[in-house]
Amino acid sequence: MSFRAAVLSIGDELTLGQISERNAGWIAQEFLRRGILVMEHRTVSDDKTAISAAISQLATDASVVVLTGGLGPTDDDLTREALADALGGVDLVEDADARESLRKRFEARGRPMPALNAKQALCPVGAKCIANPNGTAPGLCARIGQAIIFCLPGPPNEMQPMVRDAIFPVVDSMVSLAGGVSVNVCAIHSCGLPESVAAERIRPMMDRNANPLAGTTASGAIVTARIRAVGSAARDGSMERAAQEVEHAWAPYAFGRDDTTLAQVLGEILLRTKDQVAVAESCTGGGIGAFLTSAAGSSAWFGGGWITYSNQMKISLLGVSPELLELHGAVSESVACAMALGAAERAGVRFAVSATGIAGPAGGSETKPVGTVWIAVADRNEKNPSKIVRARCFLFTGDRATIRERAVRVAVQLVRLAAIGQSDVPVLWEIPKNAERVK
Amino acid sequence: MSFRAAVLSIGDELTLGQISERNAGWIAQEFLRRGILVMEHRTVSDDKTAISAAISQLATDASVVVLTGGLGPTDDDLTREALADALGGVDLVEDADARESLRKRFEARGRPMPALNAKQALCPVGAKCIANPNGTAPGLCARIGQAIIFCLPGPPNEMQPMVRDAIFPVVDSMVSLAGGVSVNVCAIHSCGLPESVAAERIRPMMDRNANPLAGTTASGAIVTARIRAVGSAARDGSMERAAQEVEHAWAPYAFGRDDTTLAQVLGEILLRTKDQVAVAESCTGGGIGAFLTSAAGSSAWFGGGWITYSNQMKISLLGVSPELLELHGAVSESVACAMALGAAERAGVRFAVSATGIAGPAGGSETKPVGTVWIAVADRNEKNPSKIVRARCFLFTGDRATIRERAVRVAVQLVRLAAIGQSDVPVLWEIPKNAERVK
Repeated sequence: MSFRAAVLSIGDELTLGQISERNAGWIAQEFLRRGILVMEHRTVSDDKTAISAAISQLATDASVVVLTGGLGPTDDDLTREALADALGGVDLVEDADARESLRKRFEARGRPMPALNAKQALCPVGAKCIANPNGTAPGLCARIGQAIIFCLPGPPNEMQPMVRDAIFPVVDSMVSLAGGVSVNVCAIHSCGLPESVAAERIRPMMDRNANPLAGTTASGAIVTARIRAVGSAARDGSMERAAQEVEHAWAPYAFGRDDTTLAQVLGEILLRTKDQVAVAESCTGGGIGAFLTSAAGSSAWFGGGWITYSNQMKISLLGVSPELLELHGAVSESVACAMALGAAERAGVRFAVSATGIAGPAGGSETKPVGTVWIAVADRNEKNPSKIVRARCFLFTGDRATIRERAVRVAVQLVRLAAIGQSDVPVLWEIPKNAERVK
Repeated sequence: MSFRAAVLSIGDELTLGQISERNAGWIAQEFLRRGILVMEHRTVSDDKTAISAAISQLATDASVVVLTGGLGPTDDDLTREALADALGGVDLVEDADARESLRKRFEARGRPMPALNAKQALCPVGAKCIANPNGTAPGLCARIGQAIIFCLPGPPNEMQPMVRDAIFPVVDSMVSLAGGVSVNVCAIHSCGLPESVAAERIRPMMDRNANPLAGTTASGAIVTARIRAVGSAARDGSMERAAQEVEHAWAPYAFGRDDTTLAQVLGEILLRTKDQVAVAESCTGGGIGAFLTSAAGSSAWFGGGWITYSNQMKISLLGVSPELLELHGAVSESVACAMALGAAERAGVRFAVSATGIAGPAGGSETKPVGTVWIAVADRNEKNPSKIVRARCFLFTGDRATIRERAVRVAVQLVRLAAIGQSDVPVLWEIPKNAERVK
């Protein structure tokens, strides 16, 4: 037997698209890790009737309903009233503990509790309050039929600890009573392989009846295999075997699992070999450096960098020759190579990566359309002098942000491939050197 | 009279939280701009019964239902079948035009159409196909009771043009028949003001009965006022007056409206004064440069930068004195000032901004906890020599990514404030210089 959960988010700003709903995805992921499938997300506006109807509907199909939002002190916070309606029109009564902890919270800040906040201590008859250590809104918990309803505040820094403290123990015991987890998931990430080719290589695992079952998704420059195992396959070694099978099929493009980033993986490799990488950025404007240093501890292997947007800075800071710039233009193989080599030498590190291109929307030409980016990797340990620096030309699709995002990820993947001795594999979006462009 | 819309997204990856749902927010925003309120978002898994039930439920309350996803060629794409069920169990029949355009699409790529794809030309009796210029999945359109149902493919690059071409004309004529838009929205963004203070300054506009009605949201380092006007206030000048009122109340922290970013706004100022800004980044690792160059056309005013993670690079590239580093450490007022000044001078530009701090999770100490970031702005046009460079110390809260994100936004706001002669206003997260830290 398996449990199914539903997530309900409340707020006009969410339904109107003014801010993005993020709680539902987080809750679904956390539930999945604990073996519970979320079957539906729903977002409704600050409307008591709509909230109450959604609670009642979801409670008929799901074993657990997690609602977030609408527990604040103002008139448009209507979750308490809606829950009371869904419980059959029960009264709201003050919870003495909740009232006391609200009072203490304001006392600790040296100010009296505003009258408005008293509302936050109200609890529908038959429901219970859930303590909120990080805010004024206590949560609520109630049972409707076979379903347990949890109502939590919307801010993630308040909601997430409450999910961990109040909901996980309940769902864990439900899962345990049912004989263990019934679902297990794993994600394998890759960069540089077209999604169609990636899918073709793991086709048998993508058959709708396979268990574990794999599916692919592409986001930015990353193609991911999402593997899901249900029933006994969720508990035996099937998942790990499936994950390794994907990693094998996608080598050397697969770089990590689940929350792992390309920057972290490159950092681990460089830590092991005690090497460093520097950056020389034009069209990415600092994005490669920002991505690399998003990894904690990157100071051990990140050798710094230069953001050389103008020709003048490419010349004065990285030693690119004015003649090369004059002859080939800034977006060229020779300038990309000179930038990478200049950065590696000046930073005194083994690796450097450079990017110079046209991110758009303006600046494109017939021979160098928007999306054209030269990326060069220098490796000062390379014995063959002709291979110390190597540039590749890419034509990235998408808008300015997408082109830059893809250039950043591919640049880091190229350094990783160089560091593991796989510089020669083809990489998605690369165009042949000196190719005649189709007019 | 006003129309209400609902958005329905289909996919196991979405309900399980493996990928984020982004279509609903985009559709809601676009509808709002055209005067249509989206009242609910719903996401259900690849389950024919669940999809069909959701279509039927939403069609009873909404005038327009936009469904995305589940139109692909594989067995788990069930939107066509679910729509046929919701239409009362009608048959699926092949649409000749859709079949022909599928055939042509594959022909243009020089390969035969796979048998699987033939399914994509099927259309429930009573529904119509919608052309998809960017993919193999045609959309579907049908009427259930008073509601119009649009089914579109999930990939945004296919979905968004179809919304523009096929849905906007329909909703525009509905709005026009109803006598014009019934809702209008505007967002005013600020950086550097605490949300509580920002809200206090526009309190009368936040009263639940106000029209236009304002609400505040905080995300990263940006506090936003979202103003909504309904009825006649959506069509007269009320919205513009309200927006100006917020901008006045939030001066000089308010920097732009709707899709405008701090980087774009700074760029516009620098373009007018023909000045440039350079960056010298330590803990932000290139993030300030990447953010500035996210603005199209930034090459006109972005003067380049240095990513100096190590002390050695701060010394060799920016001319920071080894004695200062020895005496005060890299995270200090004097090093931040030396970095900014070194960058402005070496880039030969008027402004430079530097950031040096502890982004965590490791590296914090009692006197310099994680989140401590010194940000300095140099202005070489400043007449008073003691004010040519000025550093401020911030203590940002949050995890590594949040600390870096906040440091980047605040750094750019500090340059903007300097460029408009407002360097002296207090800025959120700043801590007094040389303050004794509470133990």
